[in-house]
Amino acid sequence: MSTPHLNLMPAPANLQFGEGQLLVAQSFSVGIVGYKEARLERAARRFVQNLSRRTGLPFAVQLVDPAKATFVIHAERASRAVQELDEDESYTLEITSRGANLSAPNPLGVLRGLQTFLQLVEITPDGFAAPALKIEDKPRFVWRGLMIDVGRHFMPLDVLKRNLDGMEAVKMNVFHWHLSDNQGFRTESKKLPKLHEMGSDGLYYTQAETRELIEYARDRGIRVVPEFDVPGHATSWFVGYPELASAPGPYAVENRWGILDAEMNPANEETYRFLDKFIGEMAELFPDEYFHIGGDEVKGKQWDANPEIQKFMREHKFTTHRELQEYFNARIEKILIKHHKKMIGWDEVLSPSLPKDIVIQSWRGQKSLAEAAKQGYRGLLSFGYYLDLMHSASQHYGVDPLSDEAGMLTPEEQKSILGGEACMWTEYATPENIDSRIWPRTAVVAERLWSPQDVQDVDAMYERVESVSIELEDLGLTHRSSERRMLRRIAGTDAIAPLLVLADVVEPLKEYVREEEATKAGVVLSRNDPLNRLVDGVPPESEASRRFARAVDRLLAGDLRGGATETEIRASLLVWRENDAALQPLLQRSYLLKELIPLSHKLAGLADAGIQALDYRDRDELAPAEWTTAQLAFIEEARKPQADLLLMILPPVHSLVESVSSPHSESPKPAPEPAGTP
Amino acid sequence: MSTPHLNLMPAPANLQFGEGQLLVAQSFSVGIVGYKEARLERAARRFVQNLSRRTGLPFAVQLVDPAKATFVIHAERASRAVQELDEDESYTLEITSRGANLSAPNPLGVLRGLQTFLQLVEITPDGFAAPALKIEDKPRFVWRGLMIDVGRHFMPLDVLKRNLDGMEAVKMNVFHWHLSDNQGFRTESKKLPKLHEMGSDGLYYTQAETRELIEYARDRGIRVVPEFDVPGHATSWFVGYPELASAPGPYAVENRWGILDAEMNPANEETYRFLDKFIGEMAELFPDEYFHIGGDEVKGKQWDANPEIQKFMREHKFTTHRELQEYFNARIEKILIKHHKKMIGWDEVLSPSLPKDIVIQSWRGQKSLAEAAKQGYRGLLSFGYYLDLMHSASQHYGVDPLSDEAGMLTPEEQKSILGGEACMWTEYATPENIDSRIWPRTAVVAERLWSPQDVQDVDAMYERVESVSIELEDLGLTHRSSERRMLRRIAGTDAIAPLLVLADVVEPLKEYVREEEATKAGVVLSRNDPLNRLVDGVPPESEASRRFARAVDRLLAGDLRGGATETEIRASLLVWRENDAALQPLLQRSYLLKELIPLSHKLAGLADAGIQALDYRDRDELAPAEWTTAQLAFIEEARKPQADLLLMILPPVHSLVESVSSPHSESPKPAPEPAGTP
Repeated sequence: MSTPHLNLMPAPANLQFGEGQLLVAQSFSVGIVGYKEARLERAARRFVQNLSRRTGLPFAVQLVDPAKATFVIHAERASRAVQELDEDESYTLEITSRGANLSAPNPLGVLRGLQTFLQLVEITPDGFAAPALKIEDKPRFVWRGLMIDVGRHFMPLDVLKRNLDGMEAVKMNVFHWHLSDNQGFRTESKKLPKLHEMGSDGLYYTQAETRELIEYARDRGIRVVPEFDVPGHATSWFVGYPELASAPGPYAVENRWGILDAEMNPANEETYRFLDKFIGEMAELFPDEYFHIGGDEVKGKQWDANPEIQKFMREHKFTTHRELQEYFNARIEKILIKHHKKMIGWDEVLSPSLPKDIVIQSWRGQKSLAEAAKQGYRGLLSFGYYLDLMHSASQHYGVDPLSDEAGMLTPEEQKSILGGEACMWTEYATPENIDSRIWPRTAVVAERLWSPQDVQDVDAMYERVESVSIELEDLGLTHRSSERRMLRRIAGTDAIAPLLVLADVVEPLKEYVREEEATKAGVVLSRNDPLNRLVDGVPPESEASRRFARAVDRLLAGDLRGGATETEIRASLLVWRENDAALQPLLQRSYLLKELIPLSHKLAGLADAGIQALDYRDRDELAPAEWTTAQLAFIEEARKPQADLLLMILPPVHSLVESVSSPHSESPKPAPEPAGTP
Repeated sequence: MSTPHLNLMPAPANLQFGEGQLLVAQSFSVGIVGYKEARLERAARRFVQNLSRRTGLPFAVQLVDPAKATFVIHAERASRAVQELDEDESYTLEITSRGANLSAPNPLGVLRGLQTFLQLVEITPDGFAAPALKIEDKPRFVWRGLMIDVGRHFMPLDVLKRNLDGMEAVKMNVFHWHLSDNQGFRTESKKLPKLHEMGSDGLYYTQAETRELIEYARDRGIRVVPEFDVPGHATSWFVGYPELASAPGPYAVENRWGILDAEMNPANEETYRFLDKFIGEMAELFPDEYFHIGGDEVKGKQWDANPEIQKFMREHKFTTHRELQEYFNARIEKILIKHHKKMIGWDEVLSPSLPKDIVIQSWRGQKSLAEAAKQGYRGLLSFGYYLDLMHSASQHYGVDPLSDEAGMLTPEEQKSILGGEACMWTEYATPENIDSRIWPRTAVVAERLWSPQDVQDVDAMYERVESVSIELEDLGLTHRSSERRMLRRIAGTDAIAPLLVLADVVEPLKEYVREEEATKAGVVLSRNDPLNRLVDGVPPESEASRRFARAVDRLLAGDLRGGATETEIRASLLVWRENDAALQPLLQRSYLLKELIPLSHKLAGLADAGIQALDYRDRDELAPAEWTTAQLAFIEEARKPQADLLLMILPPVHSLVESVSSPHSESPKPAPEPAGTP
């Protein structure tokens, strides 16, 4: 199914158009029939407020007699007291020119349907209106999550709240709160207060704030799953409680990034007593039935160095770190059961010794997920959904929890795959730029997890994501506005037009290349590094480059609109070529812009190569071999990361140059395209 | 004194440059010596956070040992427990390449000096830095206020808070909170709860919120003066308490704008008992020594119609409404004294019967102010500072409390003029667009009230206001971002480039012409009218038109840069002429844009007239009389308001056309330029 002309994201399971449209005028009103609860009324009022924001019409926030309401909400019964993963989220939304009915088995479906209606309202020549239609909708997967790491960079409550608003808008239902890591312990523990007091830089969530956020999430149909990562990623625990560690310490909150050595001591009974006390307290604070214990990236270096742990391993006939961690996990699992929680952990926790109701969250991929499913474990996909790796929306869109090895599972086994989670690790994210790392790409993951598997049209996705992106900004997210603010600051002026031209065609380095570049330069990256450079301000995906690449594709494919396409391509190339002269004075004036001086030159050079290639095409000539050699050498040089950025018009310019080159031109062996480009 | 190359606004009283600059690097730290209090520490931490925001450098928020601090704060002693109007706000800021010292008699001066430093920090080729200098600064006037009317459109607490942040940034010190009007009573009264319960649409500030805002303001060195407007503008009081009114009622909260009839009954002793109870409660809630009773725009219609009031007037030998209101004010004044408050009111309260410590806030002008001063009353100027009238920054800048009649007062009499207040009446302002009505123009009023009288350079002001405008947005104000958001919504797309071209050269109708146009059309304007049209989104002043007009002035004055100037003018005119074709399809698609169809045509027509005029100039020709006649007729037609907007390039195009016209061309008698243009 394709709904490119409707701004729905995620696309619904079933949609039938009716006749006409429903005008959303000042008289618009909402009423509730059937089951009632305070949350539903709050949702209805929030819906009206959002509709006011989308239209600028000052609707009355009060609910009205349903017999007279334009929009009638009908839930049959309550949802569970604490939201569970198998709850029905389906809804039916019927819109006619006279009114709209939204009905659902329980309030969760109502929440989903309200978001659908909000997306359907558009401005028309006659007023704001939603098309007459009938949507019968339900999610493909029951677990559609977003993880935010607040350990590495703390995110204030309002940042989390606006992201929950974004999640609600795209029908996600799990907020996975990564609350502890080497770099920070972020939850207040009243029983073990040295955890947050000594394990953080003073930035943590009080229990009252935690409850407030859980309540905020519940209002939006979102479960909150806390993660406290053990036995690795745990330095921050050891600052206050060094006795938990496998090496004596002392420990300080870690500022460096990377996989570190500090590990909990699984051979010490004290560790389990401590965790029992801690988990007991947290189990009360977090109502969700799942409790994430992390379990990833344990190196075992401290274990090897500790004679008591070595002795313990010999006594238990453990020969590998893995066996020791399995023992540790099994002990934790018992503690979780005692406190009525189910375990969830990363791939590494998978072992046949654990009961089958644990959930595996896979950062390794569909193969790992399929293996777990075959063993009877349920799983979530996060591989392919790591937002911090700066991949494009289309790459995330192409990742399906039921593809590859998971696609070959039996239908029964496939039922074990609950869904997936987009993951936002925050080495390079601050409250200022995190929204631009999460949105709008997470909307694409949300669609993959909600919509039917055959919703796959990438061009239509990009059209719709543009609309949802505006909707998200209007909700208070800052993924678009933050860039301009940061660029102004970097430039020290509001006259940043030429800087925007450059910013619009670059992307941050993909995957872990930023770290690799730093390692090459002998730099240890840490939380002390200001995230105030261009790389930290630009979005992960360059929309201008994507459009340019599409135009070049069309041109080279001999598209019939060739004339207009070439005009468009040439116009862009001219802007990029001329921009350098306008930009250089700006770059000289700011210490944060100096690093862009060569990058701006290279953009001009690439644009020039592209223009010359177009000229050859226009003359129906092949370029001389020397020209080709020179251009390709320049392109290879421009391919090198600069200022942690990639010039995203490089691949299409490369294609243009090659399209006018004789096949036998001598060209340097091309390096692979920048990692992460589609 | 002129400081165009520093981004200071308001400009300081004294400034001497030193050698070099102070780099603001990651190691930047703040310490406090001398007098200490919690407010000062909060201010220092907020300062560090703001500095982080301005630089993107993650400074430690903790204060350090002053001996090791980069920036040392020194206050000598406490300010008063409740901020008073005659408190010393002076400070000395000394910056060298090694560090900075900020010293002040009390914390108020520190608050002012911190803002100065924040504005001084700029990006340089070497890093963020502040120039070495010494500033000795103090305000010219003690009362530098901003009034916000929350009666007509309620403004949520966060809107007020971000505006207080803006006030702090430009060193304003009084927030005048217009809390009641015909259209809404916005403060919770525990003793008389029908005031807020029945006198509002459910939107009011609880007493806890009120205290929170007062505390927030105090932290920023801002007094909070409440206004409860009596005896007119009081319909909202009468909904719950009709016995206070001069006519029996019943009353409903008013949605219409304008000066209405409902008036309190001054002849009824019950009125004074009620006000005693009410003022007693409010006097405890609001700690400031001043209490604003409004007192404006009493028509006396209800008084005339009420036989008991007529009888009362005869008994007291009152022959005018004014005498009756004087009696009323004198009674209120006694109640205020009983509750330890001083009275402030609009011009109309001025009468020789009142004691000399009341303050007159003048919406009528310097003449009214001078009269009050001669009678020994103190006064504030608000005439010329009405933000809702959509005047330009330069117009507000040109208004001085000590000019005209007030400028002719003796030095002793001039001391009675305490300062002024920018006033934001909210008929056409919502939480969404109010910031763009207040900022950045209020920064200009703030400078007029703080800086020496001879700071007058308008071009330098516009340069600095651009910087302060960015600073204000970074503080969380939305005066710039809201426009784009609203335009996107109106257009239903993010591709609004041609709409922005039009939006950038229009301004909302000035003064009360919007009402006059409505009256002509037989429309009664009210709170029910959505404020979602282009007129509600564009800023009060068109920066593009201002620059264009300046360029045309230069050209016509024979500026030596004529060639470049003409190129600039022609380029702008071409954009405006060509824009219509790109914009029209967008205008057709949205019911909110349709009204702009003729306006866009007219913009193109004006631009075409300008281009043709340039062509005549280039050929050193005078235009034929028929051409001139046709162009002037077109210009007169284009002058008519359309969609409540003015085309601001009209006056300079008019000048261009006239510059190539023979002096004897027959031209229609020109109407005055649009009201409010400089």
